[in-house]
Amino acid sequence: MSSFYSKKDLFFQLFEHLEVENLNRYPYFKDHHQENFEMVLDAAEQIAQKSLYPLLTEMDRKEPILENGKIKIHPRMKAIIRQFGKDGWINATFPYEEGGQQLPWSIHLAAGYILQAANYSASVFPFLTTGAANLIRTFGNDELIKRFTPSMYSGEWQGTMALTEPDAGSSLSDITTTAYPTSTKGEYRIKGQKIYISCGDHDACENVIHLMLARIEGAPAGTKGISLFVVPKIIPETSLPNDVLTEGLYHKMGYKGAPIAHLMIGSNEGALGYLVGEENHGLRYMFQMMNEARIGVGMNAVAIAQAAFQASLAYAKERPQGRKLTEKDLSKPQVPIIQHADVKRMLLLQKCVTEGSLALLLYCSKLMDESTHESEEINKKQKHALLELLTPIAKSYPSEMGLQSTSAAVQILGGAGYTQDFPVEQYYREARIHPIHEGTTGIHGLDLLGRKIFLNDGLGWKMLHQHIEDDLSTYQGPEDIRNQFEKGWNLAQNAAASLLQKAQEGPEIFLADATLFLELCGIISVGWMWIRQASLSSMNMKKENADTAFYYGKIETARYFMEYEIPKISALSQRLHSTSYPTLDMRDYWF
Amino acid sequence: MSSFYSKKDLFFQLFEHLEVENLNRYPYFKDHHQENFEMVLDAAEQIAQKSLYPLLTEMDRKEPILENGKIKIHPRMKAIIRQFGKDGWINATFPYEEGGQQLPWSIHLAAGYILQAANYSASVFPFLTTGAANLIRTFGNDELIKRFTPSMYSGEWQGTMALTEPDAGSSLSDITTTAYPTSTKGEYRIKGQKIYISCGDHDACENVIHLMLARIEGAPAGTKGISLFVVPKIIPETSLPNDVLTEGLYHKMGYKGAPIAHLMIGSNEGALGYLVGEENHGLRYMFQMMNEARIGVGMNAVAIAQAAFQASLAYAKERPQGRKLTEKDLSKPQVPIIQHADVKRMLLLQKCVTEGSLALLLYCSKLMDESTHESEEINKKQKHALLELLTPIAKSYPSEMGLQSTSAAVQILGGAGYTQDFPVEQYYREARIHPIHEGTTGIHGLDLLGRKIFLNDGLGWKMLHQHIEDDLSTYQGPEDIRNQFEKGWNLAQNAAASLLQKAQEGPEIFLADATLFLELCGIISVGWMWIRQASLSSMNMKKENADTAFYYGKIETARYFMEYEIPKISALSQRLHSTSYPTLDMRDYWF
Repeated sequence: MSSFYSKKDLFFQLFEHLEVENLNRYPYFKDHHQENFEMVLDAAEQIAQKSLYPLLTEMDRKEPILENGKIKIHPRMKAIIRQFGKDGWINATFPYEEGGQQLPWSIHLAAGYILQAANYSASVFPFLTTGAANLIRTFGNDELIKRFTPSMYSGEWQGTMALTEPDAGSSLSDITTTAYPTSTKGEYRIKGQKIYISCGDHDACENVIHLMLARIEGAPAGTKGISLFVVPKIIPETSLPNDVLTEGLYHKMGYKGAPIAHLMIGSNEGALGYLVGEENHGLRYMFQMMNEARIGVGMNAVAIAQAAFQASLAYAKERPQGRKLTEKDLSKPQVPIIQHADVKRMLLLQKCVTEGSLALLLYCSKLMDESTHESEEINKKQKHALLELLTPIAKSYPSEMGLQSTSAAVQILGGAGYTQDFPVEQYYREARIHPIHEGTTGIHGLDLLGRKIFLNDGLGWKMLHQHIEDDLSTYQGPEDIRNQFEKGWNLAQNAAASLLQKAQEGPEIFLADATLFLELCGIISVGWMWIRQASLSSMNMKKENADTAFYYGKIETARYFMEYEIPKISALSQRLHSTSYPTLDMRDYWF
Repeated sequence: MSSFYSKKDLFFQLFEHLEVENLNRYPYFKDHHQENFEMVLDAAEQIAQKSLYPLLTEMDRKEPILENGKIKIHPRMKAIIRQFGKDGWINATFPYEEGGQQLPWSIHLAAGYILQAANYSASVFPFLTTGAANLIRTFGNDELIKRFTPSMYSGEWQGTMALTEPDAGSSLSDITTTAYPTSTKGEYRIKGQKIYISCGDHDACENVIHLMLARIEGAPAGTKGISLFVVPKIIPETSLPNDVLTEGLYHKMGYKGAPIAHLMIGSNEGALGYLVGEENHGLRYMFQMMNEARIGVGMNAVAIAQAAFQASLAYAKERPQGRKLTEKDLSKPQVPIIQHADVKRMLLLQKCVTEGSLALLLYCSKLMDESTHESEEINKKQKHALLELLTPIAKSYPSEMGLQSTSAAVQILGGAGYTQDFPVEQYYREARIHPIHEGTTGIHGLDLLGRKIFLNDGLGWKMLHQHIEDDLSTYQGPEDIRNQFEKGWNLAQNAAASLLQKAQEGPEIFLADATLFLELCGIISVGWMWIRQASLSSMNMKKENADTAFYYGKIETARYFMEYEIPKISALSQRLHSTSYPTLDMRDYWF
């Protein structure tokens, strides 16, 4: 088997670290238990290994093409998407009465992680359909649900999120696509353009259902005038094409197997669109699904980095090159490069980034499940606040550090890593999208520092603080690991306090280094995950028949994180305390 | 004009910062003056603009192909390489009597920088021929020089460096390609394999001249048994093919226009090879050319990052998106993204990395010229020692930070940056080679800390120390910039001292974090260049008719460097002081 992820680590995170099997304390999950969760994950591994991984490089080399206004993708994707539908992946988390399995998001996202690690491009298709269908079923009326969701669940129809426009990328408030009411209530004619629409058109599905943001004619400016519509490529009842034209296909650096389309909406009579929920609430609906989408993107990022880690680890164990620094006898054979300290450093970097990120993302996934199903209001509120706070961090840390992590994988392979003879160069290209889509890192910095920190009187930040302190007080691992973390944690708290004082000086100064604050919170949050893992590993390694090598590896990786990553907080906090603002003072014409 | 580099900055570095026009104090350069240096640079810009830049994307999209054992490259490269020859680029630095122009390396490398920024793939061809010819003319006998160099200088023949083998990449001592003496003195039959040979075969030149490392049969093991040979693809006198077969063509992540070949040497009767210089001195010869090659690679890296910087700067000035944080009126038009602090941060990062690296590389280039032509022994020795010390730094800092810099360029363009509609995604892919070739970053870390620091009783390090202190004592710029730098400089010196103490504990511990020490020295060296630039800009902006915007930009970028990059020294020095060694303690089977 080609190893593209560590099953051992995934199971450790789910069942030892986060104990997601206990989610069955909530009525919604009452039929579930660890055994069937494992079956779900094993099933994901089966598809990943048999169908997705074998297509990884082929889907990169043979890109989709746009021919006569239609996008053609890899011919095997049709069967794969259909299988996702048939096996129930697309609506797995939804209620039984909707044909779902009431699966926790924690398990659904963990299964997704396996698929993404095997072949990110292929994993995009069902992931988007789930998101689009979830918007319809949550905010749409019964008619919309009946018309559109069943064929999306079956994998016959593709779902998309159609937000971005040529003049409205990060600034969604500037959307100009316009919906004109028709004589039928809830039905509109839409005109505009949408760009960068993932899976916006392709020939593996019979229809494409766009969840599209647009302004109803005369709606107020800005985010308060944006509505959400279902805009199908083909009108289901008549099988006639809707007025949605595929204007272009983007050629990307990576994940080439998933087509990204440029769509012209309503170039002729106007595309038929069906209002979801109420007028002018579109962006709010979108944002209520954002946590899931953003945790999802973080998961994509860590999955790719994990696949690169596994590839470079396998190479480092096999590739002989050079000798120990203390070995002067050149007649001795070369040693596998994993024995060189600098190669181990690059492997430890990847291990601490990928396993630490995965821990954080699954922690967030569990918060999604808990905050949804918690019955006590105070618990629900606290968990939701922590999830809101952690979401930009859990999206951005794996995305940004995933670049460095996949870069380390390339570096371990050396010249070979730069060639298409090994998959790491593809991972390096695919990883680069994640700091961009689903909100750029800069946008998430503003979201965290400008919004999430203050939400609910700062409840999210208080919860983070409390959980970290709790975990430090019950910590059972080596002292040096805790001490190093606490140094960073104290610096981080001081930096945050000093930054909050700057809020009085207006948003320009306060938010100038929001991206750096996001980076700092990423290091702290993932460091916290390593505190938890080091503590747990120290305890569990004493159990009978414990896999001590695994736990020693966890503890040494936690130590690596504290020795090599936590010190970066000194640098960041130095910057965050500073009252010199070159990024504000620099004039455009000085560049 | 498409702007792929800043002429203004290049001229500032050469003629204000480094005053390379004064190199004409050395007899070798006596005929040169600023005016003709500028003509050389203008000529480079002409070729870059007219011939190279227009082919940038096309050479990426239409890769070379291997057909019937022959590599075919872009058809226009033939005329371009010939023009390089005709215009005298290939042997420009060599003496008049060899047909050269006695041009300083400083100017030659600066001209190369322009070509590389325009089209890195195309720039590789003449760069390699110069290096190969330089080995022949420096260490070869007259016969070899006469047989091979004239057609290399004219661009009719390609030169290569044939070092790497399947089992000898970073570990050159493990080369096994073997040379068997023939009855003719200096002539050998060679058998072996060479991989990753840049421009190792192509159809734009009539012959390919490999400067190849091999062991003469019976030579001692290790680096002491390696000899250097000229191995032509075609024997010049007979026009018969030599026994060198092109076995494969690598498909790479980037700089696809330059073919990288896998060569089978002597599969039949053995390839004819001609010994350069003395037996078993091959690696020493190679290494004497290494400074030039490594400064050259640093220059490649900064050229690509500079092109990406210029592309993202142009985009940021034009692309409207979002509004000032203080602007709540959504009916106001969107502003160019250069007005957002986080975008300016990403532009300043690129500006400080690229201009700081260029300064350091040209500083090293000037040291190359000075240390070669200095007549006083002590000056020569000091300059050479500083050059030796700075070389791994000047190769690695631009290579590593070039990744972050081009990544920031992609990020500024957002989704557009990830597509092939803009060149930044290509720059991102091309930049990734530089931390690998001409010695990986890890290898340079070992070179710096394990070797260069101690060379000549630490003369290089002493010179660095002295120059930095001198520049601080004559510094004329804003105080805050000096203060921030001095904090970092003090921490760096303490870290170095503490590290040197560890040398007693054996090479494993001493060198465990050599890569981090290299990173620290990179930040200090480039910070030093910013101290020099800030000081000079503060003085020169007071001159009559000074371009004050340019100098303000320099000073603010220096401030950015001190505020955002210098603090990283805290993190690195914390690590270098530590006595915990997870990269040594981690066991292979714990991963």
